[in-house]
Amino acid sequence: MIKQHQKLPPTIRWENHELFLLNQTKLPLEIIEEKQETIEQVWDSIKQLKVRGAPAIGIAGAYGLLLGIRHNTNLAPQSFLEELQKKATYLDRARPTAVNLHWALTRMVNVAKHLITECNTPLIYDHLVQEAEKIHQEDRQLCRKIGEHGVSLIQEGMGILTHCNAGALATSELGTALAPMYLAHQQDISFRVYADETRPLLQGARLTSWELQQAGIDVTLICDNMASHLMSQKLVDLIIVGTDRVAANGDVANKIGTLGVAILAKYFNIPFYVACPSSTIDLETATGKEITIEEREAEEVTHFGMRKTAPEEMNVRNPAFDVTPHHLVSGLITEKGIIPAPYQVNLKKTFLKESGLSRSRCVK
Amino acid sequence: MIKQHQKLPPTIRWENHELFLLNQTKLPLEIIEEKQETIEQVWDSIKQLKVRGAPAIGIAGAYGLLLGIRHNTNLAPQSFLEELQKKATYLDRARPTAVNLHWALTRMVNVAKHLITECNTPLIYDHLVQEAEKIHQEDRQLCRKIGEHGVSLIQEGMGILTHCNAGALATSELGTALAPMYLAHQQDISFRVYADETRPLLQGARLTSWELQQAGIDVTLICDNMASHLMSQKLVDLIIVGTDRVAANGDVANKIGTLGVAILAKYFNIPFYVACPSSTIDLETATGKEITIEEREAEEVTHFGMRKTAPEEMNVRNPAFDVTPHHLVSGLITEKGIIPAPYQVNLKKTFLKESGLSRSRCVK
Repeated sequence: MIKQHQKLPPTIRWENHELFLLNQTKLPLEIIEEKQETIEQVWDSIKQLKVRGAPAIGIAGAYGLLLGIRHNTNLAPQSFLEELQKKATYLDRARPTAVNLHWALTRMVNVAKHLITECNTPLIYDHLVQEAEKIHQEDRQLCRKIGEHGVSLIQEGMGILTHCNAGALATSELGTALAPMYLAHQQDISFRVYADETRPLLQGARLTSWELQQAGIDVTLICDNMASHLMSQKLVDLIIVGTDRVAANGDVANKIGTLGVAILAKYFNIPFYVACPSSTIDLETATGKEITIEEREAEEVTHFGMRKTAPEEMNVRNPAFDVTPHHLVSGLITEKGIIPAPYQVNLKKTFLKESGLSRSRCVK
Repeated sequence: MIKQHQKLPPTIRWENHELFLLNQTKLPLEIIEEKQETIEQVWDSIKQLKVRGAPAIGIAGAYGLLLGIRHNTNLAPQSFLEELQKKATYLDRARPTAVNLHWALTRMVNVAKHLITECNTPLIYDHLVQEAEKIHQEDRQLCRKIGEHGVSLIQEGMGILTHCNAGALATSELGTALAPMYLAHQQDISFRVYADETRPLLQGARLTSWELQQAGIDVTLICDNMASHLMSQKLVDLIIVGTDRVAANGDVANKIGTLGVAILAKYFNIPFYVACPSSTIDLETATGKEITIEEREAEEVTHFGMRKTAPEEMNVRNPAFDVTPHHLVSGLITEKGIIPAPYQVNLKKTFLKESGLSRSRCVK
């Protein structure tokens, strides 16, 4: 465990076959990068939200899978593949809502499937390392492209609201929802951001506020329940959020509270955009109704840090996500451009080929 | 300071010319009743939300004013009145949004005004004590009547959402928004309540959850941003909230986040009722736009207990209230019945005579 107090380490770092994750549960008060020793530790880091954000858990999942099979290169290819599949299934269960984890693990397993007749096991492993690094590297490029498309929405003097954290900390570089803001700031466009604190785990207060502040962007922290008041005061001109899974009809699963923001946006006639890479678009899920909503521990709601803030034996609901129906979404900001409604048609047209099942060849 | 761990002491207790307030900032973890020695201490208790809830701060204000002038009974009536007015103005500034504080203080000053030519100062003081006790006693009856009218809205099996705390802790007995729920529970109607935790100060988590739980009512705590998800799951059939001030046109100022709940209710077609006694209805304020919204300290948002949860030097907005436009309000549950729209007409018709300026006579 390395404790740093200067420059922020990257969200995810893979170096010399070792995986390091920035422990996001401690931010911004403590900057701690944790070395991951086992796949079980990665499972736990994903479950505990030490690494979070749909793209980031995809990347962490790919690297985590490597940790799970790195000592199995003595197995025959077929047995190695079976082990890989078993470990992928295990890791996939860490969190159910974000599709990126499933997407990245499937992509890794498919690489091995394609190579099994051509390569020996150490070579398959090498290709898996390259695939994980490729997933990581691609994410940087996707974020940049999302930013380049989304920046067209940001005009001088705007107030922009975001919910949860879909920034650098949720991805590998610029983020998804925050990418347009980073690029607008680079282009000297003046705007202000309102960050919903995002209860229960305060990703907005702890992460979004912090990373935008570090970047010199004008950011103001509010409690989730203050968004409607600010909108009523005409302080919000644009909303951009991230997402954990977009269904084929354009329904959007994202951090709990996003649905509320979208409904407020509709009421106040404010554009509501969702930013995501194609890996978050799940054409195999027809509508939002089919998306599993993770329900997390009651303690996240009844406690704060180590402090209890609710009565003993309190009934609690703690859904971690909600689904925003597609008709509330003004557009999806993706690496392929801003996709407008009708999503049923446009998502299929734009992303059907992007299944992530790239056909690998054994390169010796 | 008395520390108790059994039965809940009343929110406000006046006994032998001494005022005791239940310190609500410590609930539910600590039950501490604090003796108030001076008007300055009462000002501070109101400002710090040790006593909160529109009706309760009206009652505490009336008693607090007594503490401010109890050592001035040696003054001539005119000087005593001047002192009383000065102290009332001082106390009135503790919090700006709830009208009840102003209403109760005005009522107290008016008693003295009416008696000044007939009574000597000690007698005026005695009448002021009686008036404060009357304000307190009336509140109990008003809450009960609000409950009796509001209970008609509650049907078997309903899910009812409330925001902040407009219960026993915000008033002298049954509360306003919670009064119909207490009476429904007494009538063996089965229903469940969802309590928004109500950031930043968690009156829902700490107070509403707790007082309903103590009463044996089925209550579930949620974060504010989860309400929309529960509504989308058809778990909420009715919403009842309290209010700090109702303008003449029916616009409703209440705890920050109420506007958001009302907009969600509209979207999901769920009835949204506001419960209040006539003392909260301010016919002298034409619309919600004229209501001063208190902006509180940034630390309420950036800290939790003693724990910092946001970056250093973070910009913060912390409006304590918002205004819900009258067209989102299904009805006002008052002691005179459930007032429907058009509020502009119906509030005037029902409450114009209720100015609180009762004409006192000197009874020796």
